[in-house]
Amino acid sequence: MRPSDDAYPSRVRPYPEWLPRLDPVVYGSIEQPDGPLTRRQLEDYRRDGFLFFPGLFSAAEVAALGEEMGRLGRDPAVLDCDGSITEPGSGALRTVFEIHKASPVFDRLARDPRLAGIARQLLGDAVYVSQSRLNYKPGFRAKEFYWHSDFETWHVEDGMPRMRALSISVTLTDNFETNGPLMVIPGSHRTFVTCVGETPDDHYKSSLKQQDIGVPDDASLARLVAEGGIVSTAGKAGSLVVFDCNLMHGSNGNITPLPRSNAFFAFNAMSNAAVEPFGGTARRPDFLCERRPQPLQPARQAA
Amino acid sequence: MRPSDDAYPSRVRPYPEWLPRLDPVVYGSIEQPDGPLTRRQLEDYRRDGFLFFPGLFSAAEVAALGEEMGRLGRDPAVLDCDGSITEPGSGALRTVFEIHKASPVFDRLARDPRLAGIARQLLGDAVYVSQSRLNYKPGFRAKEFYWHSDFETWHVEDGMPRMRALSISVTLTDNFETNGPLMVIPGSHRTFVTCVGETPDDHYKSSLKQQDIGVPDDASLARLVAEGGIVSTAGKAGSLVVFDCNLMHGSNGNITPLPRSNAFFAFNAMSNAAVEPFGGTARRPDFLCERRPQPLQPARQAA
Repeated sequence: MRPSDDAYPSRVRPYPEWLPRLDPVVYGSIEQPDGPLTRRQLEDYRRDGFLFFPGLFSAAEVAALGEEMGRLGRDPAVLDCDGSITEPGSGALRTVFEIHKASPVFDRLARDPRLAGIARQLLGDAVYVSQSRLNYKPGFRAKEFYWHSDFETWHVEDGMPRMRALSISVTLTDNFETNGPLMVIPGSHRTFVTCVGETPDDHYKSSLKQQDIGVPDDASLARLVAEGGIVSTAGKAGSLVVFDCNLMHGSNGNITPLPRSNAFFAFNAMSNAAVEPFGGTARRPDFLCERRPQPLQPARQAA
Repeated sequence: MRPSDDAYPSRVRPYPEWLPRLDPVVYGSIEQPDGPLTRRQLEDYRRDGFLFFPGLFSAAEVAALGEEMGRLGRDPAVLDCDGSITEPGSGALRTVFEIHKASPVFDRLARDPRLAGIARQLLGDAVYVSQSRLNYKPGFRAKEFYWHSDFETWHVEDGMPRMRALSISVTLTDNFETNGPLMVIPGSHRTFVTCVGETPDDHYKSSLKQQDIGVPDDASLARLVAEGGIVSTAGKAGSLVVFDCNLMHGSNGNITPLPRSNAFFAFNAMSNAAVEPFGGTARRPDFLCERRPQPLQPARQAA
C-alpha cells in the first residue's frame, strides 16, 4: 500500500515526470556557519549539489584505510554475510556493506569532522549513518554503475520521506579518468526525475549488481546533461566527494588493471528517518537502510 | 591444421607467453621520408606504437562524414548485411563493416593522404584496406571493448603472416574522458603476448560483441600497464589515431548520453596479405579480412 502523503511519487506512471524539489539543499544557516564548510562552499553545494575535495586525506590516513579494506576483504565472516556483493560473471568482491559496524576504523571515519561534521552542517540536524559500504571496484572487468538518484531508491524502496540526506565518498585508490571515477551531473539535484517501471520483489538483489529499475529514462538524462554537463571526480587516493541524495551520479566500467576503491557513507537527518517504503514493497534489509537510527557522536581520540 | 612456419603462435599453450616482436615497427626509411610524417613522428611511432592527431580534420569534413554515417545507419541494405553488428541487450547499432565499399565518402577517406599516405610511409609498401568499419558506440548503455592486440586476432583467425599492418581511427563525435575514448598502452606493440584458450567455431559472431578469447591475461596486462601506462585519446571530433597492429588497446563502456562514434580502417602491406588462419580454424568472413587485396590508389579529386 502506498502512503497518501508521498511528496515524490516515482515508479507510478508509465511515463517519466520532472517534479520540483520541495526541500532545501542546504539546511544549515549560511549566515552563521559553525561547521567545516565556508559560506562559499555552502553556496557551491546548493547550486551544484556536490563538493569535491581532491587529496583531503593524508597518505598515512589513506594507507591505514586501505589496510583495513584489505583486512575486511579477507575476513570470512565479512565475505559470508548478506551485505557482501560480488561482480556478475567474475565473482570478484564488489561491495561490502555496514563497514561502520564491521570495523572500528571505518566507524571512526564516519564520525570524522570531515564527514559527519560536514553532514551535520549541510543537513542542519543531528545525523546518522543510514548506509555505509566499501566499493572494491577491482580492475579488468568492473561493470558500470548506471546513473541514478540515491533518493529515488531510498524513498521508493526504503521509505526515506524527504530530501534531507547526502552521501560522502572517500577514495582509497587513485582515481584516473580511465578507471571509472564517480561522475556527477551538476544541478541535477534540483529536479526529481520520476522513474518508470514496477519494482520487482527483492529488487535489491539484482539492482546491486546491475540496475534497470529506478534509473532515469534516456531523454531526461540527456536533458540533465545538456543543462548541467558531467563532472568526473578523478583525483589521488584520499579525495572526498560530498553529494546531495538527489544528485544524478554514476560511473563507467573499468577495464584497466587499476582498481577504483572507495568508502561510501550515506548520512540522513535524524528528523528524516525512514518510514515504510513509499513504493509499497517490503522493506529492504537493514544493511541497506538503518532502521534503528542513533545520532552520531564525534569520534573519540585514540588513547 | 596449423602452419609450421608460425612466427607468432598464440592460443596454443595453456599459459601466456611474452614473445619478442620479430618485425620492424617503421618500415619506411626515416632518413629519406617521402610521406606526411616527420622524422620525429616516425620515431615516436616506433617507440610508442601510435600517433595521435587531435582535431586533424576540419569541422566541415567532420560534418560531411557524420552525415554519411547517419545515412548508412538508416540504409536498410546496410543494416541487413552480415557486417552490421548490434549491441548485446539493447539491439542498438554498434558497428558497420566494409564502409569503404558501401560508401564513396568513406572510400575517399581511406585514400586520403592523412590515412593511406601515412600507412604507406609507415609500412614501406603499397597498402590495401584489410578491414574497415564504423563504430557508432551510442551513449547510455555502450559496452566496453576489452583490451586486445588486433594482430593476435588477425594472425590466428585470419592468417595475417607478420606485423606489417596498422589501424587508423577518425573520430566522428567529440571524445571526452567520460564517454569511453580509445585507450592505448604505449610500448605494448614491442611484445607479442600470446593468449590462452581455444578459438571456438564462428568466434567472430560473439567476439564482435564481447571478447573472451584472444584477450591478454590479467598479469600480462598489469605488467604492460606498469611499464607503459595508459594513454586515452580524448579530443574533439575529427581527431585521428594511428596505431600499430600489435598495440594493446581497448575502451571502457559509455553510460553518458554522448555517443562516441568513429571510422576505423585497417591497412595492411600488400606483401603481407592474409594466408590461411594460423589457428587452424575456418576463414572469417571477407568483411573482416579482405581476401582480394588491391593496392590503394590516391583519392581522385571531386570534379
